[in-house]
Amino acid sequence: MSHHKNYSSIISVLTDFGLRDPYVGAVKGVIFSINPGARVVDISHEVEAGNVFQGAYLLANSYPFFPAGTVHLAVVDPGVGGKRKPIMVETDSYFFVGPDNGIFSYIFEKEKNIRCFELKNREYFLGHISGTFHARDIFAPVAAYLSMGVSPEEFGPPIGEFKKLTDIHCQSDRESVKGKVVHVDRFGNVITNIPVDLLDCSTPSLNLKGITLKGLKRSYSEVRKGEPLLIQGSGGCLEISLREGNASRFFNLKPGDSILIEKSASPSYGGSAHFEQTGKKE
Amino acid sequence: MSHHKNYSSIISVLTDFGLRDPYVGAVKGVIFSINPGARVVDISHEVEAGNVFQGAYLLANSYPFFPAGTVHLAVVDPGVGGKRKPIMVETDSYFFVGPDNGIFSYIFEKEKNIRCFELKNREYFLGHISGTFHARDIFAPVAAYLSMGVSPEEFGPPIGEFKKLTDIHCQSDRESVKGKVVHVDRFGNVITNIPVDLLDCSTPSLNLKGITLKGLKRSYSEVRKGEPLLIQGSGGCLEISLREGNASRFFNLKPGDSILIEKSASPSYGGSAHFEQTGKKE
Amino acid sequence: MSHHKNYSSIISVLTDFGLRDPYVGAVKGVIFSINPGARVVDISHEVEAGNVFQGAYLLANSYPFFPAGTVHLAVVDPGVGGKRKPIMVETDSYFFVGPDNGIFSYIFEKEKNIRCFELKNREYFLGHISGTFHARDIFAPVAAYLSMGVSPEEFGPPIGEFKKLTDIHCQSDRESVKGKVVHVDRFGNVITNIPVDLLDCSTPSLNLKGITLKGLKRSYSEVRKGEPLLIQGSGGCLEISLREGNASRFFNLKPGDSILIEKSASPSYGGSAHFEQTGKKE
Repeated sequence: MSHHKNYSSIISVLTDFGLRDPYVGAVKGVIFSINPGARVVDISHEVEAGNVFQGAYLLANSYPFFPAGTVHLAVVDPGVGGKRKPIMVETDSYFFVGPDNGIFSYIFEKEKNIRCFELKNREYFLGHISGTFHARDIFAPVAAYLSMGVSPEEFGPPIGEFKKLTDIHCQSDRESVKGKVVHVDRFGNVITNIPVDLLDCSTPSLNLKGITLKGLKRSYSEVRKGEPLLIQGSGGCLEISLREGNASRFFNLKPGDSILIEKSASPSYGGSAHFEQTGKKE
Repeated sequence: MSHHKNYSSIISVLTDFGLRDPYVGAVKGVIFSINPGARVVDISHEVEAGNVFQGAYLLANSYPFFPAGTVHLAVVDPGVGGKRKPIMVETDSYFFVGPDNGIFSYIFEKEKNIRCFELKNREYFLGHISGTFHARDIFAPVAAYLSMGVSPEEFGPPIGEFKKLTDIHCQSDRESVKGKVVHVDRFGNVITNIPVDLLDCSTPSLNLKGITLKGLKRSYSEVRKGEPLLIQGSGGCLEISLREGNASRFFNLKPGDSILIEKSASPSYGGSAHFEQTGKKE
Repeated sequence: MSHHKNYSSIISVLTDFGLRDPYVGAVKGVIFSINPGARVVDISHEVEAGNVFQGAYLLANSYPFFPAGTVHLAVVDPGVGGKRKPIMVETDSYFFVGPDNGIFSYIFEKEKNIRCFELKNREYFLGHISGTFHARDIFAPVAAYLSMGVSPEEFGPPIGEFKKLTDIHCQSDRESVKGKVVHVDRFGNVITNIPVDLLDCSTPSLNLKGITLKGLKRSYSEVRKGEPLLIQGSGGCLEISLREGNASRFFNLKPGDSILIEKSASPSYGGSAHFEQTGKKE
């Protein structure tokens, strides 16, 4: 058994299992049974059931903050037991374990020196493999062994192709950016897939239900309570928010909805008219 | 203070406290105050309030995956402060701490060399015992001391009788098995108390609302999306599922509902007609 | 870098971030990146979005059970990016990190030898500070460094004034106590801000929707199933409960509602008539 140069005992866990079932407990039990020294950190278990895209998004926005060597176990797996491959991804900084169904789409874009392996070596699985719970029987044991320093190539053959979700990028030209809503958070912030960098030298402008939002704010406190705004989100993308309110409900926006941003040649911060209600006197 | 030969610093925690109240935090604080080296692992805090059976079910399906020596703290305790005894159960592999109200029913069946003790020694409780929060004042301290190697007999006298939930088993004869729904998981899988082993040499058949499900599948991918199936669940019992859908809603099944499986003498896997809609042409 | 005499690697975390977003994962990742030896313990992430009072209440009822030296990271921060100061509070036993918006109101009352510092030293922040996520960029790193023993004064200048929520106390005179509902827990227990100590030498009596509750019970089992009662809650304050039922729904009580307790000169426990339904024959 060869050992990897750079590994950590930290295993982050992201699933769509919820917390009302025995599944998360079983996964953690398996990990500790193999590596009693593991440190298991929950990212979320509240991904919508079977929503691979949401899982990919949540992973993308939390994994980079973990220390190098962290093993990220990410299982949203509606095709469990079917043809999708169980895989392990090694990058310059991290390990990722889960199904090859697109959940690692952002990883393949953001990380460097990607090596991908199909999980085939049953030596590193539980003794009995169920048809419905590979998180417990395959992915958790592999994550546990990785957190002990077992080398990626031990788990199976390298593979060169893996599934990527399409349509995760926005389209940008000189006048506008066409993106979409990728997430609505607990506070009702509407998170788009439009990197704020794309708007660097312009004043973004967005029309929503007769309201024009202009300019990019740096914090919620730049508008009054109850007012909507465009803001650079903590993940670096454009967000539509409502100070101390719920922008998703206010504008009736949900994941998948299209967002069209008009650019105009002026500095992106400090646009004077940040909130115009079309067709209304103020 | 005598020490136990086989103990671990891992404490799993299962409650019906939810995560919107200070109760789980207080329990964890107490544990770390007594054993700063404890490793606390949440199984679930979303057991339905006061639902002892659900707690027993969740515990039964997650505890066996933990390493030997783990202390399982399980508190669903609608009778807190009343006559039910606070107990500690020692088995060949684990320790269990909680109220004697049936929450350990499956443990008493599945584990070997069971020894049970009433928690009476106030030396191992918090200084002040409230009438409403024994998880914090009694059970958490005891779990913490157990995780440090304190011997079970230190906590109180052995007891020979303990509460078991009745009606947790199915009834089987040559032609059929009569069981019930014990849990519906987040994905809408309907989990029964019918061990698949009971159906080993037969093709199980189930009638539900005019639909006949025949044969046992090994994975969801053996049927088409949106189709119902019978499958061996990850806990070893028969489950009724709907591929990428919600079987509980589709069939309107909930915990406690009766399930009648007809056996027929043929191999249990690979029955040809897996999905027949009675009275409908196809 | 000077080190503090009394610190622990335990960091408790309390937020209103929920568990469906990447925020809690990012906070934990940052902590482990700075202090790989930290032990992170969730108190709750289900504080109602932006409800500073609820956060203060949950913190007050769980922090004292943690071992001395614990760093309590508490972020309910609707004013993030605005004028409220990021602060650190040191007391005889603990460290607290979060926004100066009232979330530490109970701490300022209950703890001794309070020293408060504004977080200004960017050396202990992440490299880039977003306008919307100080939990990740400021508070988590500071908590991590505190858990490694960095001295409070390293983080910024001491400050003498900090925000306290008003109206957290009840008013008591010889005949009555006027308080309010501060929390309704998952079980429907209605928790008031009336310390039971205030009622020590009297039989409390409360009128609610034509029902008079008299006397203080020690445990739910002192009344019959489905009956309401007054009880000393696990936090030391008066609670209105319904045995194996939901008092909040029964009496239609919610946080903020006023509670008027009449005192009468008799021992507080064991009042004979505990449940009178006015105007109804029994």
